[in-house]
Amino acid sequence: MALFDLASKIEGKPLYRYLSERYGDGQPDDSVFVYAAGGYYAPGKALTDLQDEMRGFLDLGYDVVKMKIGGADLAEDLRRIEAVIDVLDGDGSRLAVDVNGRFDLNTALEYGRAIEPYGLFWYEEIGDPLDYHLNATVAEHYTGPIATGENLFSFQDARNLIRYGGLRPDRDTIQVDPALSYGLVEYLRIQDMLRQHGWSSRRCIPHGGHQFSLHIAAALKLGGNESYPGEFQPTGGFADDAVVEKSRVGLTDTPASASRARPPSTRCCASCTADRPPTADAPATGRAPRTRPARRPLPDRRHRPTPNGPARSCTPAPPRRCRASWAPPRSARASSRARRRVQSPLNGVGVPP
Amino acid sequence: MALFDLASKIEGKPLYRYLSERYGDGQPDDSVFVYAAGGYYAPGKALTDLQDEMRGFLDLGYDVVKMKIGGADLAEDLRRIEAVIDVLDGDGSRLAVDVNGRFDLNTALEYGRAIEPYGLFWYEEIGDPLDYHLNATVAEHYTGPIATGENLFSFQDARNLIRYGGLRPDRDTIQVDPALSYGLVEYLRIQDMLRQHGWSSRRCIPHGGHQFSLHIAAALKLGGNESYPGEFQPTGGFADDAVVEKSRVGLTDTPASASRARPPSTRCCASCTADRPPTADAPATGRAPRTRPARRPLPDRRHRPTPNGPARSCTPAPPRRCRASWAPPRSARASSRARRRVQSPLNGVGVPP
Repeated sequence: MALFDLASKIEGKPLYRYLSERYGDGQPDDSVFVYAAGGYYAPGKALTDLQDEMRGFLDLGYDVVKMKIGGADLAEDLRRIEAVIDVLDGDGSRLAVDVNGRFDLNTALEYGRAIEPYGLFWYEEIGDPLDYHLNATVAEHYTGPIATGENLFSFQDARNLIRYGGLRPDRDTIQVDPALSYGLVEYLRIQDMLRQHGWSSRRCIPHGGHQFSLHIAAALKLGGNESYPGEFQPTGGFADDAVVEKSRVGLTDTPASASRARPPSTRCCASCTADRPPTADAPATGRAPRTRPARRPLPDRRHRPTPNGPARSCTPAPPRRCRASWAPPRSARASSRARRRVQSPLNGVGVPP
Repeated sequence: MALFDLASKIEGKPLYRYLSERYGDGQPDDSVFVYAAGGYYAPGKALTDLQDEMRGFLDLGYDVVKMKIGGADLAEDLRRIEAVIDVLDGDGSRLAVDVNGRFDLNTALEYGRAIEPYGLFWYEEIGDPLDYHLNATVAEHYTGPIATGENLFSFQDARNLIRYGGLRPDRDTIQVDPALSYGLVEYLRIQDMLRQHGWSSRRCIPHGGHQFSLHIAAALKLGGNESYPGEFQPTGGFADDAVVEKSRVGLTDTPASASRARPPSTRCCASCTADRPPTADAPATGRAPRTRPARRPLPDRRHRPTPNGPARSCTPAPPRRCRASWAPPRSARASSRARRRVQSPLNGVGVPP
């Protein structure tokens, strides 16, 4: 995928335009639906912490957010879900829940019955990624949208999901990740297969939140892309000047993918650079020496870095202390106040579902 | 798997007895059905060369042999198949053919129609290992036995083969390889799954021809094990004193798997050691220095090393020159003359198919 990025840079085009001209219809989307993924479990994380995290996503311009379920018992998970829906103005259709493949069939059906009344955005990766039969059985009983596929990498596995997984092309979402699935070439094969089976590309919203998928989403007119605000730099996130508004992010005219536009850096996130004084290893000016940066410690989930660049904290400090330093872009804050209803990735697109 | 081998050595038991006591019924098979896999394509390899190769396998005590198909056109492959059947006294039920996953559906069906009259031992890995639908479609049309599964490694993939692959428990064979499938623990899960679906362990004949599978086959009462005579040392083959007779090999009382009984060696095969004069790096007596042996060049398929230890040639010499040095065990040669009909892996076992 880096070679596609390089090729687009040589041609002086943004990656999504380059890909659209070669593999799409030459008329790429100029913005992409994105949702903010988070809502992890963490020791001592209270419902109010979860709500604060989700409010942070909304402040950044997201309408749709995602949280984990299945790491607590059903009663506790329902309390967590309801706490987040409260933050979403009571609108469950703006909340996706992600099981990360943990449930057996009985648990999947039990949770399905319990969460169906909320009308959630989707119920994600419910069972083992290769247990197509479980997925199909849940799809026969759970009427809301289902999403899955991030752990299916090959054309063959994706085809088996379509053949046997019982997914419904009018509502379900395929999350195959172009970077995990052996790159764009295999992903294009998967898109061909989906078309052959009568699926719209708009029903694909890749996993992972990286910029390659973002550009592919615009070029191939997918339904959107996952987003992990502030995580997985430099391939994650968006261009430095990108703005998320109503859960859509615009693509810029920077050649290649925007991640290439960023200067070499020893920072682990933007706020670190701002806070860190120049040192012999990382002088204030000039190129940093070519040393391997220290491995970043596993983040405390309560202090997860948030949107593009800015992070709450990369050192063990109370999250509130850093809060002031990661204000979202003004336009995003403004839009978040006006926002009421999710912009569906299918709205106004004019393609079959 | 090496740890299981070590544990059996500590207990002073052969691996198959150790495994039978822990995971089987404590009454392991004392011999295992084996077939000889070969019959590769090679530039300039004539039908007579293929026949000579197969005669070599018969001389070693095998009744059932396997050859590749799908690397030539159908007419040529039929000539190759018929040439081998001629060597097998006209009995196609002693010949398995292996596609190595190459065929699309149309070719698979075309070959199926053409080879069905031969009554072959099996038609192996016909299409892509994950294309369960292709396999199921062929199984609806081809009435002879089918074998597949060597490229399915997980419990989940093997379960999908059973769920969707259309295999028939009265005649087809599952070739999941315990070493490829994440070891014995995963293989035991697969065996449980097969039982749950009504399949006998006798319908499993692992791929690979290594001694771990051989011991597992005896311990878990599988249908047999693949064999690559002389290849993949030291884990391949059999114990040094093992004899193949009527396509069955007996297991010995050597602790652990017999591969551990072999001394460290710099040989690439037994005949090389015999032929190679002592050198400073590999003195005639004493332990060879711990240097990495030179990488063995890709063998000319016409000179493939044959049964356990002895090889036709590892240097570019005409196969006939070495023939005299790899005489099979006398008992095997004697038995090969008396042999007429394949010993089915299911014969006399008294278990449901």
